Amino acid sequence: MTRVHIVGASGYAAGELIRFLDRHPHVELVTLESASAAGTAVRDAFRGLPHADYVFEGSGTALAVCRAGDVVILAGESEKARELAPQFVAAGARVIDLSDAFRAEAVYGLPERYREQIAGARLVANPGCYPTAALLALLPLASFARDIATIVLDAKSGISGAGRTPKLGSMYAEVDADVRTYGIPSHRHGKEIEQELRALGIDAPFVFTPHVVPLTRGMLVDAYVVPRKPIDETDVRAAFVKAYAGNPFVEVLDPPRVPYLPALACTNDTQIALNVRAGIIHIVAGNDNLGKGAAGQAVQNLNIMCGYPEETGLGTRIPVV
Amino acid sequence: MTRVHIVGASGYAAGELIRFLDRHPHVELVTLESASAAGTAVRDAFRGLPHADYVFEGSGTALAVCRAGDVVILAGESEKARELAPQFVAAGARVIDLSDAFRAEAVYGLPERYREQIAGARLVANPGCYPTAALLALLPLASFARDIATIVLDAKSGISGAGRTPKLGSMYAEVDADVRTYGIPSHRHGKEIEQELRALGIDAPFVFTPHVVPLTRGMLVDAYVVPRKPIDETDVRAAFVKAYAGNPFVEVLDPPRVPYLPALACTNDTQIALNVRAGIIHIVAGNDNLGKGAAGQAVQNLNIMCGYPEETGLGTRIPVV
Amino acid sequence: MTRVHIVGASGYAAGELIRFLDRHPHVELVTLESASAAGTAVRDAFRGLPHADYVFEGSGTALAVCRAGDVVILAGESEKARELAPQFVAAGARVIDLSDAFRAEAVYGLPERYREQIAGARLVANPGCYPTAALLALLPLASFARDIATIVLDAKSGISGAGRTPKLGSMYAEVDADVRTYGIPSHRHGKEIEQELRALGIDAPFVFTPHVVPLTRGMLVDAYVVPRKPIDETDVRAAFVKAYAGNPFVEVLDPPRVPYLPALACTNDTQIALNVRAGIIHIVAGNDNLGKGAAGQAVQNLNIMCGYPEETGLGTRIPVV
Amino acid sequence: MTRVHIVGASGYAAGELIRFLDRHPHVELVTLESASAAGTAVRDAFRGLPHADYVFEGSGTALAVCRAGDVVILAGESEKARELAPQFVAAGARVIDLSDAFRAEAVYGLPERYREQIAGARLVANPGCYPTAALLALLPLASFARDIATIVLDAKSGISGAGRTPKLGSMYAEVDADVRTYGIPSHRHGKEIEQELRALGIDAPFVFTPHVVPLTRGMLVDAYVVPRKPIDETDVRAAFVKAYAGNPFVEVLDPPRVPYLPALACTNDTQIALNVRAGIIHIVAGNDNLGKGAAGQAVQNLNIMCGYPEETGLGTRIPVV
Repeated sequence: MTRVHIVGASGYAAGELIRFLDRHPHVELVTLESASAAGTAVRDAFRGLPHADYVFEGSGTALAVCRAGDVVILAGESEKARELAPQFVAAGARVIDLSDAFRAEAVYGLPERYREQIAGARLVANPGCYPTAALLALLPLASFARDIATIVLDAKSGISGAGRTPKLGSMYAEVDADVRTYGIPSHRHGKEIEQELRALGIDAPFVFTPHVVPLTRGMLVDAYVVPRKPIDETDVRAAFVKAYAGNPFVEVLDPPRVPYLPALACTNDTQIALNVRAGIIHIVAGNDNLGKGAAGQAVQNLNIMCGYPEETGLGTRIPVV
Repeated sequence: MTRVHIVGASGYAAGELIRFLDRHPHVELVTLESASAAGTAVRDAFRGLPHADYVFEGSGTALAVCRAGDVVILAGESEKARELAPQFVAAGARVIDLSDAFRAEAVYGLPERYREQIAGARLVANPGCYPTAALLALLPLASFARDIATIVLDAKSGISGAGRTPKLGSMYAEVDADVRTYGIPSHRHGKEIEQELRALGIDAPFVFTPHVVPLTRGMLVDAYVVPRKPIDETDVRAAFVKAYAGNPFVEVLDPPRVPYLPALACTNDTQIALNVRAGIIHIVAGNDNLGKGAAGQAVQNLNIMCGYPEETGLGTRIPVV
Repeated sequence: MTRVHIVGASGYAAGELIRFLDRHPHVELVTLESASAAGTAVRDAFRGLPHADYVFEGSGTALAVCRAGDVVILAGESEKARELAPQFVAAGARVIDLSDAFRAEAVYGLPERYREQIAGARLVANPGCYPTAALLALLPLASFARDIATIVLDAKSGISGAGRTPKLGSMYAEVDADVRTYGIPSHRHGKEIEQELRALGIDAPFVFTPHVVPLTRGMLVDAYVVPRKPIDETDVRAAFVKAYAGNPFVEVLDPPRVPYLPALACTNDTQIALNVRAGIIHIVAGNDNLGKGAAGQAVQNLNIMCGYPEETGLGTRIPVV
Repeated sequence: MTRVHIVGASGYAAGELIRFLDRHPHVELVTLESASAAGTAVRDAFRGLPHADYVFEGSGTALAVCRAGDVVILAGESEKARELAPQFVAAGARVIDLSDAFRAEAVYGLPERYREQIAGARLVANPGCYPTAALLALLPLASFARDIATIVLDAKSGISGAGRTPKLGSMYAEVDADVRTYGIPSHRHGKEIEQELRALGIDAPFVFTPHVVPLTRGMLVDAYVVPRKPIDETDVRAAFVKAYAGNPFVEVLDPPRVPYLPALACTNDTQIALNVRAGIIHIVAGNDNLGKGAAGQAVQNLNIMCGYPEETGLGTRIPVV
């Protein structure tokens, strides 16, 4: 059994963490810490977790009870993570941080790319939701890196990715009936994508445009890759199939199948469709921004760090509609 | 292992049946029969079931391969059920029918009321989605039956309850942004509710008004019961707690909790809140119209008929948002 | 021309006021005052008003420029209204207050009931959205007041009625996919409804249950009236037709028509359907909670107070879907 | 006054046509012809048009009563349009066809490009919704035509664009909670876009990917234009401002404003934002797919053909949320 503490445990991603870990066979959820919700029953804060039998603890609790070998998941703000992560590491814990505090320096928690490094890491920076989908859409193209002229990333996301802190842009009346283009001229996730593309040897210019669509959860990234010379769809498909062989959470779809977000909701799965038209490689990657885009991936990282089979506790649910 | 055949297997409720039964430890899904989808892969018909590895069979297949002791679930139209049920029973199978063909004559498949009769039945009529919620809101009041003067049932349902056959009223553009009152002057489910209320000894006049709200799945029924003489909320609550003790799928909520439909989605659960105001008993019952309102209840009935623990295969999922 | 000032001008109802009054032929919008948005262009605060060429003023501006004969619409918080209304009246202005500060004491701004008093009032308390729909569903029953035994009011509302201040319960992820029962054991609008029912001579016990449904705007109130003795539907219908003759914003629908919320969006219209079943009178009233439920009714009151035809500036728009 | 007949008048675009033309000061709506809805009151077929006082006529009515000088709007299927258009032209009428029957041969009804040809045309092919948005996003780049290397068009549309005929893919339960990529490998609107790009001298390879998002109405097209050599954002903006000067229905937004679909609903307006990032020109064009994307543009064309001011009958409405 691994003792796990979640700090910043009252946000949307934390709620999903609780859902996954509450039934994880090798995890004991020791501390759910939330400064704002201390003393509140988890099932009252998350009405979608009616059977969760926990109470939120106040600030400092996790650090006080943390032992060497525990796993701490930081699910709060970036500044807080920057302050707390070293303290937990010093206490002998391994840390998975969901904020962007350490994405430029710590092991980047994208298992499909850094599985081995994650296994031995003391601090894992869990990727952002947009970068996760965008990078899974592009990773297999590393072998074509020098032939890529331009990349266009057009993303559509549910609003839960904006977090649970009330703000005007997350209100129902502001999200309903619109498709909101934002993050222009730049979005912090653009830098994160760029860092990882450069690490893959892909230095083509790219634009990344996020949109909010009227969804609670779910994300779709359309990646359009313009090559310098013709690339055959068969070769692209082969590269994807090869790249994701043995990766249980990435499915490369056969045409005409495309990602279906309701099938991905509450899972750690990613579905990828691809095609080449007019010489342009078009990849569509879909996931649940709170699943593979946040909490699911954190659990996947936890499994890797602790030596558990990667799917442990991540059994998918499959609603029909 | 129980061999199960689903006839009329390409509708929304059937999709949920497949989802539940595909992972049911004591069930072998032998036949998924659909006249309209014969030859189609299940995962293509239900994109929300990407891992379902079945193909729809044509008409007559289930009857041809059915053996004594099998369970047949009829998930299609009423007329078809009326024709097929006797044939399957004659073949030695036990039948659960999701249509309204036999609700006035066969064992009424509401386990919280007819558990024992279901256990021995050869033909079970699975209740409609509205009657399930309405009756669970009213069953515990049977002991007050003579004191009930009037009942108002105001129901709100997701559109999946209207089925998967394309029709104008089920289109996105017709459901979005409206709350649609319908079923006036009468709805077939009104008669079904009346039949069961009368069987409980409740003969008060009642109105039942269904509404479609912009939801895919989920149902809420507000039941307002006007008593002839004052009834104490404590007594009402005690009656509910007692009535549902030992019933794993009905949760009587403590105030101020009220049903939360996302917590019920894809489950067989019902949540019930109640209060007495101005002398009027107000009960709110929520469920997933495709879960406890259809497929989940059918699986619950199957478990009872086959002697399996009632929750088998119905493990809930609990999305946070 | 009437000079008009709006104080608390950056909320949802205020936005609708600006939309209506910007094109009102006899109104000059002099001041749009908002403490929180001072200095901001109106079209930036309300992206749905891209052609609105105004800038929000800071606190105190309206009072400084107000002249005798002006109309001031208070669209902010109750406490602020209580403080400001007497000052504007003292300055010779007529005041319409959208908060609940004065609903128990000032002229109640429901034109279908108090048209004459409104015409001469210096301070009009604009009704709440729920009371507007509920009372329009019940007003014509005043002549049956003594025969009414019980009233059940079951209301469904879009979330914009909860205002524009960010709060958890108004976020997209919290409203989507649910029907939220709230206001139990009591909602402040219940008292307002009670006050007006009592004024009509209706002293029957009643319950009022509001629900939030996944809509930005739109409200439906189902009123169930249990009479002490049988009442004929024909008589009820005649009472409604008579009561609303000459009232341009209330339409009594012939069966089987029922209110259609998209047809009411952005209008000051109310649609009412009625029927008698099992001896119970069932009235369904629909409106736009920001229209007849707030801003539209305020403009209607302004027209009455200023002697303009009641429909001025309230020309309806009629989207098809 | 111009006599107008609408053939195929019971679909979504036709409903919008009725809404616009019913209040058009120079139009008499003579015939609303619908084979499927003949005999039905328009307000029953379109509950969003409760004040429309018309009845649908049967097939052939428009042709029988059509006079020289009348305008006929064909709002039905392509095949029917191909059959009927020549007959109406032969009868001396001018025809606006909303289908794709004549888009390769007749005057292409995009006023911002072909205003003069439209003015004198006897048959105008109203553009598709996707091409309208895509072409308005690209028209001003004609002067850079030779410098364009690649174009990526990523479109997001409300479901009403799929028409009013019931089909599985348009049902609420299929559209809700998903972003559906479709039209791969090719969509008929891709050819239409290509035809017009080629006519502009733009022969760069391009991909066009449509998506359905959970919206009833509204469309956003993100156009990404990769130039062969650096192009300055100032120059691009200047080209757009110049191109759309004098065009009342296209607004080029200043940063950081982006299209807001609720502000465009039920209007003939298009909003365009643009920027250059990483050397890539990114244009975002938003409209109402039933407005500028269909019915609004048809009315605009009618105005041009009849010599009326272009905005006649197209006065916008501006909902706040």
